[in-house]
Amino acid sequence: MRELLRVPVGETVDLSAYDTAATPAGPRDKAAGRAETARMARPLAALQERLWAASTAGDRRRVLLVLQGMDTSGKGGTVKQVTGLFNPSGCRIQAFKAPTPQELAHSFLWRIRKALPRPGEIGVFDRSHYEDVLIARVRGLAPRAEIEDRYARINDFERSLAEDGVTVIKCFLHISYDTQRRRLLKRLDNPDKRWKFDPSDIDERARWPAYQEAYEIALRRCAAPYAPWYLIPADHKWYRDWAVSRLLLEHLRELDPRYPAADFDVEECRARLLKQGDP
Amino acid sequence: MRELLRVPVGETVDLSAYDTAATPAGPRDKAAGRAETARMARPLAALQERLWAASTAGDRRRVLLVLQGMDTSGKGGTVKQVTGLFNPSGCRIQAFKAPTPQELAHSFLWRIRKALPRPGEIGVFDRSHYEDVLIARVRGLAPRAEIEDRYARINDFERSLAEDGVTVIKCFLHISYDTQRRRLLKRLDNPDKRWKFDPSDIDERARWPAYQEAYEIALRRCAAPYAPWYLIPADHKWYRDWAVSRLLLEHLRELDPRYPAADFDVEECRARLLKQGDP
Repeated sequence: MRELLRVPVGETVDLSAYDTAATPAGPRDKAAGRAETARMARPLAALQERLWAASTAGDRRRVLLVLQGMDTSGKGGTVKQVTGLFNPSGCRIQAFKAPTPQELAHSFLWRIRKALPRPGEIGVFDRSHYEDVLIARVRGLAPRAEIEDRYARINDFERSLAEDGVTVIKCFLHISYDTQRRRLLKRLDNPDKRWKFDPSDIDERARWPAYQEAYEIALRRCAAPYAPWYLIPADHKWYRDWAVSRLLLEHLRELDPRYPAADFDVEECRARLLKQGDP
Repeated sequence: MRELLRVPVGETVDLSAYDTAATPAGPRDKAAGRAETARMARPLAALQERLWAASTAGDRRRVLLVLQGMDTSGKGGTVKQVTGLFNPSGCRIQAFKAPTPQELAHSFLWRIRKALPRPGEIGVFDRSHYEDVLIARVRGLAPRAEIEDRYARINDFERSLAEDGVTVIKCFLHISYDTQRRRLLKRLDNPDKRWKFDPSDIDERARWPAYQEAYEIALRRCAAPYAPWYLIPADHKWYRDWAVSRLLLEHLRELDPRYPAADFDVEECRARLLKQGDP
């Protein structure tokens, strides 16, 4: 399934050529999609436990899921639904907002490095270092020469992560312009969802073509064999959750982490334990 | 239900007087217990979302669940089962191991403060600052005078948390000596669980009475109205999970967090959104 969603390395990306409501290789409808995603909970948690167990014996491998997409594309929903399939104690989740003054005083990768998963963990980024070539590019938040420089720095950074045992899985949640309007209106119409709405969302939406172009550039320049970008059609939430879960499952199966063997004498421990009398 | 499990403030605690297999106020059996816990998922997640939403409008309140108990008492299992009922992005989970040299160079509360939940979050500690009056007392890891001093420092610390909007919920997962042996043997017998076993667990087990006494002292000195200790009979995993979930639910209902009202003109935003044409 991975091959179908993977952005080809080194090729131009035309986001308008991708159907945001498509369901490639997916279940046939919402009910089947939700059921299939739920069925992945057990194997995902089992693989996560093995990844964690292996780390206690020195295995440095871990996973980093990077979620990017326009406002309302479902980054938060994906964290809730997909990360919710794992044991929360082995997950390290970070949502990146506009950088603080302290963060701005450092390199754009500084806050990213601090939030990386430790060996054995599943890391999840809701937004990421890609914002520094997305909103930063669209809104001119840094000199153009610096932004141009960042793509190479991102590639170097992600290559070093891969060399250090991090499986980097980058997902662009692709929604249509109409889907965004529908979802923003829903936030306005439901008093319990208004806290998610910010009037500035409408101004950002006015820059839709500039954002799509910034994404196309980022996907083209930073799709790498060691850190692939996946393009997830995300108009259907059930498909989005199924696809991201499935990507994680395929990558974790490929990692095939193993429970470590005991580094102590099992029989001797059993005997000592059975010999212990009343406290 | 809270009252039944709450350790009385200022009274002597005799752990041997509590039945570790009891199920006070609980469902009648495992099937009913698991079902009732699952039914709490929806109200817990709904209250958590409201707590988070309120924090975006300046509400500083949050929850800190502290889990303590002997080896195999189910601290990790509780994190998995109970925290798994929440949206993982709003949870901040920290497992405390033996302190690092860097941590030892600071006050024992230093690493605790760094791991506290932020406003709107559900924090979970798997072990905590209580280790500094438990294993530290039993193993003499600090001068006795310093350990005696720590109870008051813990009380001051927890009072300051309460004053800063943190609902502190401390759970002692109480298991029997026999249950611990059974669970340790299970770890030895199952190759996939051996990574959880450490031969030093047997040495710690030999100090069972000293640990029970250290817990009795900690519960007596640090049970406070602003930071209650709850004594959870934990021989039955289903009861343990039900009881901790139920405690969280009762505390969250009492907090009664509210969605913030919109601080912008909803009608004006709706009109602007509908006016936006094609990108």
